[in-house]
Amino acid sequence: MIKIRILSVGKNKESWLEEALQEYSTRLERTAKIEWQFVENDQALEKEAKGACIALDPNGSLLTSEQFSSFLVKEIEKGGSRLTFLIGGPDGLTPKLKSFPLVSLSKMTLTHQIARLVLIEQIYRAFEIDRGSPYHR
Amino acid sequence: MIKIRILSVGKNKESWLEEALQEYSTRLERTAKIEWQFVENDQALEKEAKGACIALDPNGSLLTSEQFSSFLVKEIEKGGSRLTFLIGGPDGLTPKLKSFPLVSLSKMTLTHQIARLVLIEQIYRAFEIDRGSPYHR
Repeated sequence: MIKIRILSVGKNKESWLEEALQEYSTRLERTAKIEWQFVENDQALEKEAKGACIALDPNGSLLTSEQFSSFLVKEIEKGGSRLTFLIGGPDGLTPKLKSFPLVSLSKMTLTHQIARLVLIEQIYRAFEIDRGSPYHR
Repeated sequence: MIKIRILSVGKNKESWLEEALQEYSTRLERTAKIEWQFVENDQALEKEAKGACIALDPNGSLLTSEQFSSFLVKEIEKGGSRLTFLIGGPDGLTPKLKSFPLVSLSKMTLTHQIARLVLIEQIYRAFEIDRGSPYHR
């Protein structure tokens, strides 16, 4: 079973966000176990960032969903079915965290809450693309 | 008062989405009145697409939030404080609708539901950028 950890600075304050993230975590259950982990600051994020990681960063690669799918599948293989996504705090990633592969979800600045939602939907979409399902067309 | 109409094919099926969109519509109240309008298909969308319009399209311009802010402010001025955003159905925009200025929210393919959320947050952010508020930093 693939395990994907999404490690974020800050919490989900909004109830709608909890509901939306839960919906995608549930949909992903047959493919991957999603673990949401929240930490207080960038130092705690650095400490927890172990193993294969991908960090979200405004200067990261802008990928299509198809490119993200291939990239995700490869990184999961490299990580032995384990992968961690890192979402930094409002000051952006520390230099150490920027040494991981960097991905940007949009040229636009997203709130951290919306970034979490876009990310989980893209992870779900990535697996659907990989299995050639009609979800992505 | 600025009036922005967001015209979409399809409905908001998810309760979390209703809640999230309502949150941003409320936050925008002091700046702009947001009107959500849903239509059944692309033909109805064509019929309703009057006045100054911006359409969301995967091949549209990829803008930063700052560029989107300047663009939005200019288009609202051109439209006499009235502007309509068009979000097409699953088959994409009709050729007629592609004659409007086209914007893409991300290189990634978003669900229509998530696109609505990203759009309303970017509209909110655009006005905050325009007034130099600390929301966008």
